[in-house]
Amino acid sequence: MVRPKLGRTMPAIPIRTVPVATPGGSYDILIGQGLLAASATWAGLPRARLALIVTNTTVDALYGDSLAEALAPHYARVERLALPDGESHKDWATLNLIFDRLLELEADRKTLLFALGGGVVGDITGFAAACYMRGVPFVQVPTTLLAQVDSSVGGKTAINHPLGKNMIGAFHQPQRVVCDLDTLGSLPARELSAGLAEAIKYGPIADAGFLEWIESELPALLARDPEALAHAVRRSCEIKAEVVGADERESGRRAILNFGHTFGHAIEAGLGFGQWLHGEAVGCGMTMAARLSQRLGLMAAADVQRLNRLVQTAGLPVVAPRLAAPGSDETGRWLELMAVDKKAEAGSIRYVLIDGLGRAVLRPVPEGDVRAVIAEAQALAA
Amino acid sequence: MVRPKLGRTMPAIPIRTVPVATPGGSYDILIGQGLLAASATWAGLPRARLALIVTNTTVDALYGDSLAEALAPHYARVERLALPDGESHKDWATLNLIFDRLLELEADRKTLLFALGGGVVGDITGFAAACYMRGVPFVQVPTTLLAQVDSSVGGKTAINHPLGKNMIGAFHQPQRVVCDLDTLGSLPARELSAGLAEAIKYGPIADAGFLEWIESELPALLARDPEALAHAVRRSCEIKAEVVGADERESGRRAILNFGHTFGHAIEAGLGFGQWLHGEAVGCGMTMAARLSQRLGLMAAADVQRLNRLVQTAGLPVVAPRLAAPGSDETGRWLELMAVDKKAEAGSIRYVLIDGLGRAVLRPVPEGDVRAVIAEAQALAA
Repeated sequence: MVRPKLGRTMPAIPIRTVPVATPGGSYDILIGQGLLAASATWAGLPRARLALIVTNTTVDALYGDSLAEALAPHYARVERLALPDGESHKDWATLNLIFDRLLELEADRKTLLFALGGGVVGDITGFAAACYMRGVPFVQVPTTLLAQVDSSVGGKTAINHPLGKNMIGAFHQPQRVVCDLDTLGSLPARELSAGLAEAIKYGPIADAGFLEWIESELPALLARDPEALAHAVRRSCEIKAEVVGADERESGRRAILNFGHTFGHAIEAGLGFGQWLHGEAVGCGMTMAARLSQRLGLMAAADVQRLNRLVQTAGLPVVAPRLAAPGSDETGRWLELMAVDKKAEAGSIRYVLIDGLGRAVLRPVPEGDVRAVIAEAQALAA
Repeated sequence: MVRPKLGRTMPAIPIRTVPVATPGGSYDILIGQGLLAASATWAGLPRARLALIVTNTTVDALYGDSLAEALAPHYARVERLALPDGESHKDWATLNLIFDRLLELEADRKTLLFALGGGVVGDITGFAAACYMRGVPFVQVPTTLLAQVDSSVGGKTAINHPLGKNMIGAFHQPQRVVCDLDTLGSLPARELSAGLAEAIKYGPIADAGFLEWIESELPALLARDPEALAHAVRRSCEIKAEVVGADERESGRRAILNFGHTFGHAIEAGLGFGQWLHGEAVGCGMTMAARLSQRLGLMAAADVQRLNRLVQTAGLPVVAPRLAAPGSDETGRWLELMAVDKKAEAGSIRYVLIDGLGRAVLRPVPEGDVRAVIAEAQALAA
């Protein structure tokens, strides 16, 4: 892991700006190099006496000082809180560390929170911002590819409950999202792949051309080429902004962003949060949802194979794990885990399916087809 | 404590309806007798498979069965959760009991919560509804006068933090508020008085005529005359609905509803939540805020005396308690407790002051005046 050069005077590539407009708030996503350490990046945010950077111990060591220095000209006081690292800490206990600190600091309603880190830090900090004094503003500073292409955009915040992922949360839009591509240089390969899963997702659900682009640029993406990463992040954010702008609170279309997530959440919950990375579970889940689409006559076998190959080449798992104790009802356990998914209503799950590359549909699916897909995806191990 | 007659076929007084319109949702407040046990009261709410009544052990014993029976025709499944009773339980641990039950029941996004009880039950259930799966609908069924005239209306939900009251919460509007006046028959006298504090509040801040009405009808209100209670609840809800409709998220005018609350919150936090009832603290706090208004030349001495007399006759305290250890800086302790109030910004508190009966203004106040008022209010004990 190499500490990337920050604060360069001339960014190597031009800064991209993606606007997001929702009923709950409008803001910009900035994408570029050297953003985090540049004081100018942080101009024009809501005025506050106190800024609190919430991060985790790993990211704090890499970028905490740079961000704190860059924020110093803008706020009378800049404080930092480093949470324990990992999805297993996305819970009440960790959330309360943020509230405790805010109250110790006598933080008022105008206090600005900066979520510096990956999806876990962004989700939990955003939820703290949603609830502290019934809502204070916050800024997303995603440092993982997954957070840059997906979780930092759209205002979904949450923590996990032992009985289900992201079960407790709020919709709370950030004031700005700052994607510094340089931070991806320090990302472990496994997390880079996990982020690619969410970028790949946008192709099947909304843009077949973007899927093709990722296929051809995958080597550059895996080599962390800034131009390639910049385009992947920008196009992902554009698609997400369009979907979220049309349906902030997921009463309809926004649910297509959950392609692969119903199976993925079952994997994460079944193995225990943190065993597989979220993006790994989504990668495998997308191949399963594609197979399900194929079974229902919606997706061509060749396209399913194509997605499968891309997921695998991106360094993501395509073989589904076993979630039940040996000898017990394996596919039944999956169905049980999927039933608590937030997308379930009145006990029946609406699956995000691909109706030809670039188009997603939501519908319930006969249980037999779901069971068959789970068994197939596990059999790949043989 | 007498169990009131419920489910009478002919309400003794006509049902009043007060509409509330905010950006976050529009709904009706129903005020009348026999509402809780009448199945018709619950028609026209959002459809759901599961209704969960959240209440406390005390209220559950009185009205849990009646409400469950009245809801039965409307939902396939009606479940009940009785929380421990009291402001001291308005915390994370109790909130999590609601989430645990919802997940055990595999409650989906359409599940409807019914908050049956006083302000604590309403605030905590509303906050659970705001956060469960990022928001499910809920209905307020306030059974105390305080909840009927104030806390059940307007969408403020919250729990307490050891360092401050209502510090963690959300704005989440209910689908309906049902004020069954019969439930006030079972209310201990102390809680009836606490509720009167919030009703009295609306006079000084918005309607001098209503203050006069309460003065003349106080004996009827204390005797729990249904006509008098109906008018007090209706006029209180009308004023609150008007204020909240103009400023749902308290960026301005809504703050006038906090008249007496800055001092009141200091009392509650300083003595430990649950020692004084919220309405008792607000009652005493209003007399202190009135004195402060008088010191600043905004309120006539005669009006301060009038409010003081009304608060006292309503059965509420007008002598401020001691909050610091003997020998330490008493008024300093008050200032410290008030500094964490949500209304504080950048360390300076904007006090709700009365600029002539019926008109509230918000402004910062010199510390010396605040200290003087605290000392005065404590000296009344001598």
